[in-house]
Amino acid sequence: MTTPALREQPFDPSAIRNQVACVLSDFLARKSAAADAQHLPADVVQALGDFLTAGGKRLRPILCVMGWHAAGGHGDTGPVVRVGAALEMFHAFCLIHDDVMDNSCTRRGAPTVHRALARAYTPGRSRAAADFVGTSAAILIGDLALAWSDELFHTAGLDPAQLSAVLPLLDAMRTEVMYGQYLDVTSSGQPTADLERALTILRYKTAKYTLERPLHIGAVLAGGNGELLDSLSDFALPVGDAFQLRDDLLGVYGDPRVTGKSRLDDLREGKQTVLIALAMRNATPARQHTMSTLIGNPALDEEGAERARQLVTATGAYNEVRRLIQTRRRQAERVLERLVLPPGVANALRELARAATQRRT
Amino acid sequence: MTTPALREQPFDPSAIRNQVACVLSDFLARKSAAADAQHLPADVVQALGDFLTAGGKRLRPILCVMGWHAAGGHGDTGPVVRVGAALEMFHAFCLIHDDVMDNSCTRRGAPTVHRALARAYTPGRSRAAADFVGTSAAILIGDLALAWSDELFHTAGLDPAQLSAVLPLLDAMRTEVMYGQYLDVTSSGQPTADLERALTILRYKTAKYTLERPLHIGAVLAGGNGELLDSLSDFALPVGDAFQLRDDLLGVYGDPRVTGKSRLDDLREGKQTVLIALAMRNATPARQHTMSTLIGNPALDEEGAERARQLVTATGAYNEVRRLIQTRRRQAERVLERLVLPPGVANALRELARAATQRRT
Repeated sequence: MTTPALREQPFDPSAIRNQVACVLSDFLARKSAAADAQHLPADVVQALGDFLTAGGKRLRPILCVMGWHAAGGHGDTGPVVRVGAALEMFHAFCLIHDDVMDNSCTRRGAPTVHRALARAYTPGRSRAAADFVGTSAAILIGDLALAWSDELFHTAGLDPAQLSAVLPLLDAMRTEVMYGQYLDVTSSGQPTADLERALTILRYKTAKYTLERPLHIGAVLAGGNGELLDSLSDFALPVGDAFQLRDDLLGVYGDPRVTGKSRLDDLREGKQTVLIALAMRNATPARQHTMSTLIGNPALDEEGAERARQLVTATGAYNEVRRLIQTRRRQAERVLERLVLPPGVANALRELARAATQRRT
Repeated sequence: MTTPALREQPFDPSAIRNQVACVLSDFLARKSAAADAQHLPADVVQALGDFLTAGGKRLRPILCVMGWHAAGGHGDTGPVVRVGAALEMFHAFCLIHDDVMDNSCTRRGAPTVHRALARAYTPGRSRAAADFVGTSAAILIGDLALAWSDELFHTAGLDPAQLSAVLPLLDAMRTEVMYGQYLDVTSSGQPTADLERALTILRYKTAKYTLERPLHIGAVLAGGNGELLDSLSDFALPVGDAFQLRDDLLGVYGDPRVTGKSRLDDLREGKQTVLIALAMRNATPARQHTMSTLIGNPALDEEGAERARQLVTATGAYNEVRRLIQTRRRQAERVLERLVLPPGVANALRELARAATQRRT
């Protein structure tokens, strides 16, 4: 379960980020050359490459490599990094489609893919027609990212034992996040007090997808057993919950200059978050009614949003979510205390639990 | 290259259709049970199952099994049928997203997935909000179909040699059809005389995706070599071209009661088809101008569509496309004459070339 090298040196997320960046840029360079050779449009790879290099924490590849070390993985990190890059490409797919479904204008401080493409295809078209082409093109670039994540995965050089261990986890991850998104988009619109549903969305859309499955996938690549996977879940799920709870706070209260995304979108869509469910649950009927007229109104302006924020805060929901985040962080830290892990990995996971609960972007 | 059993009995597409239907319904039944167990929404599997059982020619699975026989495949059809079912699930993904991107209302005589879901999620929502939820939900169900097609594929029981032969073809197929779609959606809007582009779209979106790659995939599962694959391409590409050229005619001149889909959509979108490119190329400047005001107008009514049809016919484009279809059929038939294939398969391919050029739906 431990490796001498890791005992001696700290786990280095930035090295993994660089390796993942290399895998992705090599992969896309080959796709670009193939498109050129077949006289296919260059803007597909361009748009996906721009999106992938515009930012992102590379959390899933880093967790995948952490899971691998946690299960005793050492030596050549090539295959596990390539699997991590496949997870990052899958995440690009998720975000590009998510932005279409949320009708978001900005991501990582830049125009979203569908907005950028709508602009690129504006000449000779009406605004509505250009928007439609932009959305369709972004759906297709997302689809390609999903297909290409699979290509990265099955060219990672895994042996048959690794493949048969990891494929069911990959299938589970993809299905879970899509169900989470489905619940999310079909629940949005009107704020409700349905805390149970908000927690299910959180669990599927984020905690399992962002934290638990990447750790699992990395762990089984190094032969991690069911007991280790369970312990990793005990850590990952509360941290993942905290990560998304923090994201929900940032989506309503965050500073767009820091987060790089709008703080009106979640309110306009009427996203079914734990924050909003708690606010609706705690509020008086009069305040519930006012929140219902503000939250889920696609034309909500900054003034209305400020009123909504003040109401949510006044119900105590803001502080309650902050407490939930802290509880989950402590819960995750207790798991780390009983887990036997290479010290570099234990420290990195502890740092992750801290960062997830204090993230500002 | 031949099998005694096939010499004696004709190739039976309806048996393959039944086997594929069984694989798909078993797979979805397990997905449905898993969703129930996790308290996840039942309408995801329901919508996908309804779509898959509402019709469809199962052309890709049938071609996949044909390719397998063509390369001498015989005995247990289990794995090749499961790969065929994966291709059908992939096709469901393509069509569901295609209908979103084309904003189509009907498919196979029933409401499209995004329209059906918009209706299901109407209560408590404005018309615009329900449409938006329907579209988002359909994008996600398409995404799941793509992920699940991959799951069907990698649980097909292929051996490592089959996997390493077939994966590059699967990757190529997915990339090609997505590029074809991308060219299609970004070229639509205004009719142009760009025949070259219309032919590229046809080739990538249909000929390679619908005919060539399914045959190739089946063939390599039975160890088919590069020479056989090239011959199958020589047959598949002209038939695929003819199939799409016929589809383009039906999209403009077809009877919606027979085709199950609108004959206004292609004109309203200003789809970049060979038919329209030829019409624009042949027309006088005055007629070009009139066609430009009609084709690509999202509000085109049946009267305007009838005028567009008459103009396209008057340019000779309708008859020219019919001639292109016949030329391609003869080209494909000549390939069959020189190919050594099990007679059942040769007959089935000849019948396919005939059906593709005379299809009414």
